[in-house]
Amino acid sequence: MQRPSGRAPDQLRAIDITRHYTCHAEGSVLVAFGDTRVICTASVEEGVPRFLRGSGSGWVTAEYGMLPRSTGTRMGREAARGKQGGRTVEIQRLIGRSLRAAIDLKKLGEYTITIDCDVIQADGGTRTASITGACVALVDAINYLQRKKLITTDPLLQMVGSVSVGVYRGVPVLDLDYAEDSAADTDMNVIMGEDGGFIEVQGTAEGAPFGRPELDAMLDLASAGVQQLIEVQKQALAEG
Amino acid sequence: MQRPSGRAPDQLRAIDITRHYTCHAEGSVLVAFGDTRVICTASVEEGVPRFLRGSGSGWVTAEYGMLPRSTGTRMGREAARGKQGGRTVEIQRLIGRSLRAAIDLKKLGEYTITIDCDVIQADGGTRTASITGACVALVDAINYLQRKKLITTDPLLQMVGSVSVGVYRGVPVLDLDYAEDSAADTDMNVIMGEDGGFIEVQGTAEGAPFGRPELDAMLDLASAGVQQLIEVQKQALAEG
Amino acid sequence: MQRPSGRAPDQLRAIDITRHYTCHAEGSVLVAFGDTRVICTASVEEGVPRFLRGSGSGWVTAEYGMLPRSTGTRMGREAARGKQGGRTVEIQRLIGRSLRAAIDLKKLGEYTITIDCDVIQADGGTRTASITGACVALVDAINYLQRKKLITTDPLLQMVGSVSVGVYRGVPVLDLDYAEDSAADTDMNVIMGEDGGFIEVQGTAEGAPFGRPELDAMLDLASAGVQQLIEVQKQALAEG
Amino acid sequence: MQRPSGRAPDQLRAIDITRHYTCHAEGSVLVAFGDTRVICTASVEEGVPRFLRGSGSGWVTAEYGMLPRSTGTRMGREAARGKQGGRTVEIQRLIGRSLRAAIDLKKLGEYTITIDCDVIQADGGTRTASITGACVALVDAINYLQRKKLITTDPLLQMVGSVSVGVYRGVPVLDLDYAEDSAADTDMNVIMGEDGGFIEVQGTAEGAPFGRPELDAMLDLASAGVQQLIEVQKQALAEG
Amino acid sequence: MQRPSGRAPDQLRAIDITRHYTCHAEGSVLVAFGDTRVICTASVEEGVPRFLRGSGSGWVTAEYGMLPRSTGTRMGREAARGKQGGRTVEIQRLIGRSLRAAIDLKKLGEYTITIDCDVIQADGGTRTASITGACVALVDAINYLQRKKLITTDPLLQMVGSVSVGVYRGVPVLDLDYAEDSAADTDMNVIMGEDGGFIEVQGTAEGAPFGRPELDAMLDLASAGVQQLIEVQKQALAEG
Amino acid sequence: MQRPSGRAPDQLRAIDITRHYTCHAEGSVLVAFGDTRVICTASVEEGVPRFLRGSGSGWVTAEYGMLPRSTGTRMGREAARGKQGGRTVEIQRLIGRSLRAAIDLKKLGEYTITIDCDVIQADGGTRTASITGACVALVDAINYLQRKKLITTDPLLQMVGSVSVGVYRGVPVLDLDYAEDSAADTDMNVIMGEDGGFIEVQGTAEGAPFGRPELDAMLDLASAGVQQLIEVQKQALAEG
Repeated sequence: MQRPSGRAPDQLRAIDITRHYTCHAEGSVLVAFGDTRVICTASVEEGVPRFLRGSGSGWVTAEYGMLPRSTGTRMGREAARGKQGGRTVEIQRLIGRSLRAAIDLKKLGEYTITIDCDVIQADGGTRTASITGACVALVDAINYLQRKKLITTDPLLQMVGSVSVGVYRGVPVLDLDYAEDSAADTDMNVIMGEDGGFIEVQGTAEGAPFGRPELDAMLDLASAGVQQLIEVQKQALAEG
Repeated sequence: MQRPSGRAPDQLRAIDITRHYTCHAEGSVLVAFGDTRVICTASVEEGVPRFLRGSGSGWVTAEYGMLPRSTGTRMGREAARGKQGGRTVEIQRLIGRSLRAAIDLKKLGEYTITIDCDVIQADGGTRTASITGACVALVDAINYLQRKKLITTDPLLQMVGSVSVGVYRGVPVLDLDYAEDSAADTDMNVIMGEDGGFIEVQGTAEGAPFGRPELDAMLDLASAGVQQLIEVQKQALAEG
Repeated sequence: MQRPSGRAPDQLRAIDITRHYTCHAEGSVLVAFGDTRVICTASVEEGVPRFLRGSGSGWVTAEYGMLPRSTGTRMGREAARGKQGGRTVEIQRLIGRSLRAAIDLKKLGEYTITIDCDVIQADGGTRTASITGACVALVDAINYLQRKKLITTDPLLQMVGSVSVGVYRGVPVLDLDYAEDSAADTDMNVIMGEDGGFIEVQGTAEGAPFGRPELDAMLDLASAGVQQLIEVQKQALAEG
Repeated sequence: MQRPSGRAPDQLRAIDITRHYTCHAEGSVLVAFGDTRVICTASVEEGVPRFLRGSGSGWVTAEYGMLPRSTGTRMGREAARGKQGGRTVEIQRLIGRSLRAAIDLKKLGEYTITIDCDVIQADGGTRTASITGACVALVDAINYLQRKKLITTDPLLQMVGSVSVGVYRGVPVLDLDYAEDSAADTDMNVIMGEDGGFIEVQGTAEGAPFGRPELDAMLDLASAGVQQLIEVQKQALAEG
Repeated sequence: MQRPSGRAPDQLRAIDITRHYTCHAEGSVLVAFGDTRVICTASVEEGVPRFLRGSGSGWVTAEYGMLPRSTGTRMGREAARGKQGGRTVEIQRLIGRSLRAAIDLKKLGEYTITIDCDVIQADGGTRTASITGACVALVDAINYLQRKKLITTDPLLQMVGSVSVGVYRGVPVLDLDYAEDSAADTDMNVIMGEDGGFIEVQGTAEGAPFGRPELDAMLDLASAGVQQLIEVQKQALAEG
Repeated sequence: MQRPSGRAPDQLRAIDITRHYTCHAEGSVLVAFGDTRVICTASVEEGVPRFLRGSGSGWVTAEYGMLPRSTGTRMGREAARGKQGGRTVEIQRLIGRSLRAAIDLKKLGEYTITIDCDVIQADGGTRTASITGACVALVDAINYLQRKKLITTDPLLQMVGSVSVGVYRGVPVLDLDYAEDSAADTDMNVIMGEDGGFIEVQGTAEGAPFGRPELDAMLDLASAGVQQLIEVQKQALAEG
């Protein structure tokens, strides 16, 4: 089996994380997983949603979008159609849940950090790239809060990364690009923490159901892949 | 560890599937997982969405809703608020994907079967009950198509069932009710076929990340649980 | 003249009122007028809409919906289309006005009771069945408020019931089912109180205008019909 | 009893119907019931809604709106709020049904006549003034179709008029203005044809239920009132 | 060159401003620029939008609409379509900005004046007629505030008027009607104050770009035209 | 007078145009006017809107958006709020009109080119940067159509560029950044062609009205500025 991308089954695409990509946001990251490129910004606001007011706890939430021509064929602009599609809603809920697992909301205090993930070029894996980049933007937002002495503790529990795995022509492969994803039998997105624990596992049989051995092989690939991604996150953060 | 429900960790709630629950739909099922009760109807229409026209292939799609007072506190009616919430969208997309795995769409021909899952009473696990009940309604809709000689083949690939599993106070448990779900550390919805293959696996760490051993134990519980549910489906269908 | 249903012109369909149909709502009723079945729940919330705040007066309001496949052909789900249709709005406003006539809002105090009428199977007369069932759910909600000692008076003024009447092939008939309604020249919905007074009268000529004698005959039929319905309400409530 | 308006119980307000009020519409009427002023236009378009295509039958439909400051306090503009309110929907459905009773849709042929009723000044009875004025605009639209030889028959069945009646301080009164309407116990809108038949009767108890004698007295008043309105319509149309 | 309207290039249409056109609004004007007729009302409300609260400053804002059949072909009603179109939004923002230039918002105090411009008949230049009429309605609203002693100063800075200019068959012309506007190469809307200063200039090349000499000629025409319009405004206001 | 940016009154910011910025669109440009950065893509689709079908003419249209955190404070995402704001609508209509002036739509044939301008970082002048960048993307889309031999003529009439001018502390200045724009008395956006003709002129008095001499000075500045921008466009296009 030869992957369309020519990569080894357990090989990530070229991963690149650029911090301080735009100038206004408290955290701003351009993340690239191969040709997939996403701008992830983290915005800090005082106050929390109503259901948390007075609780002393902070909040992390996410929104996701794709530029209309980030894809091969132009998609209608969601703002013009007047609603976010089902896929968008699903992804931004996933990003939000994943990032909340990186943070001790109690230690954050009554601040809301809103993560915006906007895909400027799509080639598969936009949600996993988004989570991986967004976690770095989130850390920069926390750095900002600490630098401004708005919080005195460190609410970061651990870095969180995400990668897709799938079964392509019978072989479990890591980090599928669009061509591979379109042809895969099974597609799984895995979000994990630095400690190797699972935060979210979402596997879908695209064609035939998948068996436990394939599931196990995919989880092995994902575990190794996320640890590499977390290394890249840490290098980016080390560059200050 | 004692479950709030008093059930054994690997014990399903009382499962009940009533066919022909309402009179107009081609398939109409009332499914109960304990106190969770969902009306699942399958509606047959000639024709398919635009992207399938002329392909000879059929389509199966789903919509999900909750009656405003199916829950402990009244929820705003989505029709009145003017949009379906993110959770609704996520669930109905999951139901649709799951049921499409039960069917050979090519054999269905250019018919659309729309599954409506409307929760009239909620006590946890509404999406897994919906999928389990909806698959029976889907079979009745196929029966209708065959009885009317609109199709001459059998597009059913296999029965599909679904159950939730979770980790409650450190112990993996099957088919969580609302009280258990609210207190669980991890929540996973598993959709499987009659053949034991996975169609969809969605696991979320509610608190701390979960490890591979817990994941394995939950998958074991789910596999056994879904096979029991498929037995109940078959008994219901056997009653004609 | 033979009615399609075989009933006498002044004969109601089989009427059935089941209380405590679902477990969460303060009042929950399944009402059947023949094959028309509606779930009516009454939800109690503290507080009132802005225009009543500080007035000491309570509020009763209603929402109405039909499950997509409660009808012979599947209707689009209003939540998915993003708005309630004109017929829905008209009916829920009618239900709300009718039930407010059953209650002394001053005695209710600053509580809001929201009535949800969700049609699970439609065969004509869904609005009249809704009002008739909803009034029982409303009484159960008041019982709840009294039992919890949240109110100490009895805000119920009188029971309210509703029935449709029409002219079918020249003969005034009571409580039309769908087949009769579709073929009727005139259709009138009458909402009355226990005391025989009119709360709402809505008559529409479907074909030719109707004369005063037909109007008089329909009102006579309706008056007798509503009194029978109020008897059924009272029996249901007597069962505790 | 003295009416706030000083009118006799059976006395209409000053009624005025001005044809050709604006220049673009096929029928354009300014109707005044006292201080209530409504612009009613009738627009002719070739073709009919989908459910009538190929049937040979035409269609008449209506839309209703109020200028934001037609009332004592400025109302939010429905176009800006992004939806028509329940009252608007109810009224425009009523206008449409009423006008369809004036026309033999088969004779109209596959044309759609859309009636727009826009209230520029409101003082009670906007729906009854709308129907009364709109029927004249509708006749002018039919005149247009005949003049242009687009239809060769006369689809007009009869003129249709409408008036409100109510019980004010125990006395049945005709054509209530805003001050009277706000204080009335019962409010009824009656739509009738030239032949004295009822097209629509909508009575609502605002306070206590109303009895049959009051209902009878209101219907008597309305019958006489609508016949006077139809005289005014005919005079306006006679002026060519 | 002969204008379709027969007017001289620098000649306005017949301009008419009728005050007190409807009875409820604090300012109510019917303005006619030839066959273009617009109802402009000014509504006074206590309070200001959130961004001005506590600033001591007032606010002036505008909304614009067209009756569906104000035009040659019926336009869909924006309230029914559920949103205001781009042209509507653009025009109402322009009207609001223009009128704020007429007022010292600080002297107005914390009142909001909402201007509604509703076109009942359109023949080109609806936005310029709206601004010109609305400024008179605005003055009447200020008169109301002074008469009621709600403000003691005069917030009016100067009258504001507006006219369109264009290039028709190579000749700059003033105040284009619909026939001229449709055939013009360039279309410019100019809003000016009594003192001859520019408040807004919006010029658009409909066909070929326009040069500086044409621009200069159009601005000259507009300057003279607006001064005439301001004379008409003052005469209308002098009539008390 | 010293501009906050330290630039001379007639000095543009650093202008940069990067072609082929993303890989999917037929034309894709990143344009920078100082710190203002906009992604402009041009998407080619066969077919035209309904009003042009069969006319042989093509269409160019534009959509505009800002990433939520392109600005100093996070703006709500328009897709999440369910509608595009008034400013967005105004700007995208302006971009569309401006670009249509660059093209002979007849020579384009029945293709639609959709321009998306998405601001990733805002510092004033986003609409003028958008138009200037979009015109380059448009040329690349035309190049694509020619290269694919889908069209054989050259529909480009001329390059179109845009710049803002304003009066800052009494001095006319070119290409205002956010700090300058916020403090300016007058703000004007000018769109011009390569031939020096005006395509659109939109000037707004932010404080006091502006006189003809200021208007003239601003137009002089803009004319020179746009010619420089067109030079930059041409250099970018020359790089192939």
